[in-house]
Amino acid sequence: MTTLDDLPIRDDLRGLTPYGAPQLDVPVRLNTNENSYPVPEPVVEAIGKALSAELRDLNRYPDRDAVALRADLAEYLGHGLTVDQVWAANGSNEIQQQLLQAFGGPGRTALGFTPAYSMHPLLALGTGTGWIPAARDADFGLTAADAVAQVRAHRPDVVFLCSPNNPTGTALDPAVVAAVLAEAPGMVIVDEAYAEFARPGTVSALAVLPGHPRLVVTRTMSKAFGFAGGRLGYLAADPAVVRAVQLVRLPYHLSALTQAAARAALAHRDALLGTVAAIMEQRDRIVAELRARGHRVADSDANFVLFEVGGDRQLGLGASDAAPRPGAVDQAAAWRTLLDAGVLVRDVGLPGWLRVTAGTPAETDAFLSAMEKLS
Amino acid sequence: MTTLDDLPIRDDLRGLTPYGAPQLDVPVRLNTNENSYPVPEPVVEAIGKALSAELRDLNRYPDRDAVALRADLAEYLGHGLTVDQVWAANGSNEIQQQLLQAFGGPGRTALGFTPAYSMHPLLALGTGTGWIPAARDADFGLTAADAVAQVRAHRPDVVFLCSPNNPTGTALDPAVVAAVLAEAPGMVIVDEAYAEFARPGTVSALAVLPGHPRLVVTRTMSKAFGFAGGRLGYLAADPAVVRAVQLVRLPYHLSALTQAAARAALAHRDALLGTVAAIMEQRDRIVAELRARGHRVADSDANFVLFEVGGDRQLGLGASDAAPRPGAVDQAAAWRTLLDAGVLVRDVGLPGWLRVTAGTPAETDAFLSAMEKLS
Repeated sequence: MTTLDDLPIRDDLRGLTPYGAPQLDVPVRLNTNENSYPVPEPVVEAIGKALSAELRDLNRYPDRDAVALRADLAEYLGHGLTVDQVWAANGSNEIQQQLLQAFGGPGRTALGFTPAYSMHPLLALGTGTGWIPAARDADFGLTAADAVAQVRAHRPDVVFLCSPNNPTGTALDPAVVAAVLAEAPGMVIVDEAYAEFARPGTVSALAVLPGHPRLVVTRTMSKAFGFAGGRLGYLAADPAVVRAVQLVRLPYHLSALTQAAARAALAHRDALLGTVAAIMEQRDRIVAELRARGHRVADSDANFVLFEVGGDRQLGLGASDAAPRPGAVDQAAAWRTLLDAGVLVRDVGLPGWLRVTAGTPAETDAFLSAMEKLS
Repeated sequence: MTTLDDLPIRDDLRGLTPYGAPQLDVPVRLNTNENSYPVPEPVVEAIGKALSAELRDLNRYPDRDAVALRADLAEYLGHGLTVDQVWAANGSNEIQQQLLQAFGGPGRTALGFTPAYSMHPLLALGTGTGWIPAARDADFGLTAADAVAQVRAHRPDVVFLCSPNNPTGTALDPAVVAAVLAEAPGMVIVDEAYAEFARPGTVSALAVLPGHPRLVVTRTMSKAFGFAGGRLGYLAADPAVVRAVQLVRLPYHLSALTQAAARAALAHRDALLGTVAAIMEQRDRIVAELRARGHRVADSDANFVLFEVGGDRQLGLGASDAAPRPGAVDQAAAWRTLLDAGVLVRDVGLPGWLRVTAGTPAETDAFLSAMEKLS
């Protein structure tokens, strides 16, 4: 049998395994930050109707520029954005891949502040972009001064900021975005996949777009919109950035079905985003309860919570001094214990820490109950 | 206003324009080799039903490995293929991009025999793969000896063969595939987007897969299946090749809607592929009629025809000696004349030649009638 090693694959891919959390059939799935609420029946009907209208003409290629969808996305984002400032693709992964193809690539570098979204370095690898892992504070925070110092030291062509940050959950201080934007020699991508779950008062980088043509804000419909299966990511930026990604996008990358379904979902945003408040409530409940039990927990502006499995139980601190400590509980073993209790969470590879999605109240109950098995 | 030149885009992208034929609202669109027949009503209903079944759970990510769809595709292809030998993506463009990410990329090269599918060099550019344009004969043909000599001279990491070749339309002699496979040091990709339209007796490279782990055959549902708007391309190869592209594919690249719609289309393949014979009939009619009128025309195994606008009218030859000649009719002007007559064809940039899609009998009538305006 031919093995991967027998094939002339790129040397930098040898020994890797495909990215992705285990897709397991478990009662409570809280590992990929999906929206736990199914699509409401009226929205199901509306999307179904929109799709049906496309089917007869599937023999024709879709609108290569997805103009109607982009106009809808611009209108949803607000901030005075228009269709020429928005671009869409099959998930924000494809958006970010296109950005790296246009602004990164061979001979160029991208920098991210880890731990952050683990696809960023993989997208760099896949596009031949050098990856520079920059550091966050010991408590997973990032100050403007620290960020600027690292950008200055490396002068990357692309900087990834992630706000709210995955897997830690905390939104960035707008001062960090402003400072990085002032220092970075190239593009600055703010990944706002979880923006709709941010705590009140959180400022989106969308507000900073005017006058900053090297800033790109990426978003997704996979989380708050509960549209993960539909695959729709998008960006907002200067129109020149949109023209740049159009040079590298695959022609007809976005199917007629994706465009129609996403437009119908956007038209029913009130129903879909109606779950956000309930999810934030569970998120805050998980944070409070785990802290009450003595776990250290990162502040969350997302639909997930990063917590230390062991934790300094007598202190009930926030996320301060969060670096792995000697004697930390083995998170992989804890992950397995929770799975055996029917609750699938995410081991993001941070020693001693796990990430759990905030879902329905019943899912929170199940998770919090399963957590007692770790004691 | 910020221009593209103000942004730090890659130098090799500067000055380019986005790939793609004009999407014009014209009565007769014969420029992108779509299947002119709309999806039949029973298939519309079946796809609609399959999509509806997915909608409630769109909050969940799709099967990252698209196992059920790949099994269906393997069964459709036959040749004893199984699910582990098939991979699917959003169009064969994405398939080929993934192949270049895995086997090409920075420091590597890909070679194609031009004129061929014009996305191949663009996919190379987008993945940082060096592109080597190799030559076809003056009559657009390619012999095993010529192909081998050029592969030997350049030793590319990836060779693209295109059979039936786009834009010329002619399928490759299987001896060319075998000879290139024997000589090439790396991967050999045979792009068979138009395979279902090939003339009787044409041999698919699928037959050569056993024992050749460096061979990849790519296909699409955009043409014969009339599923261009659904965006579904796929490959068949050794299981190790599938594992290789899984290292670079974006997670959840294929939406739940795409997977469901494609599966429903495959289940109704008889109805969808029922148009192929009628299209081949129009294709043969276009070839015969244009030759009768004195145009030189390339032999076609596809759903399109490449013809010389002026042509050697008194000779009525086949595709021999097809190189541009002094005094060739300006194909761009001819393209405009046909467009003014309501018929959109494709100017593929071959001096003196144009490409026309074979569609319905009425579309052929309109095209042949418009062609008289060129006299």
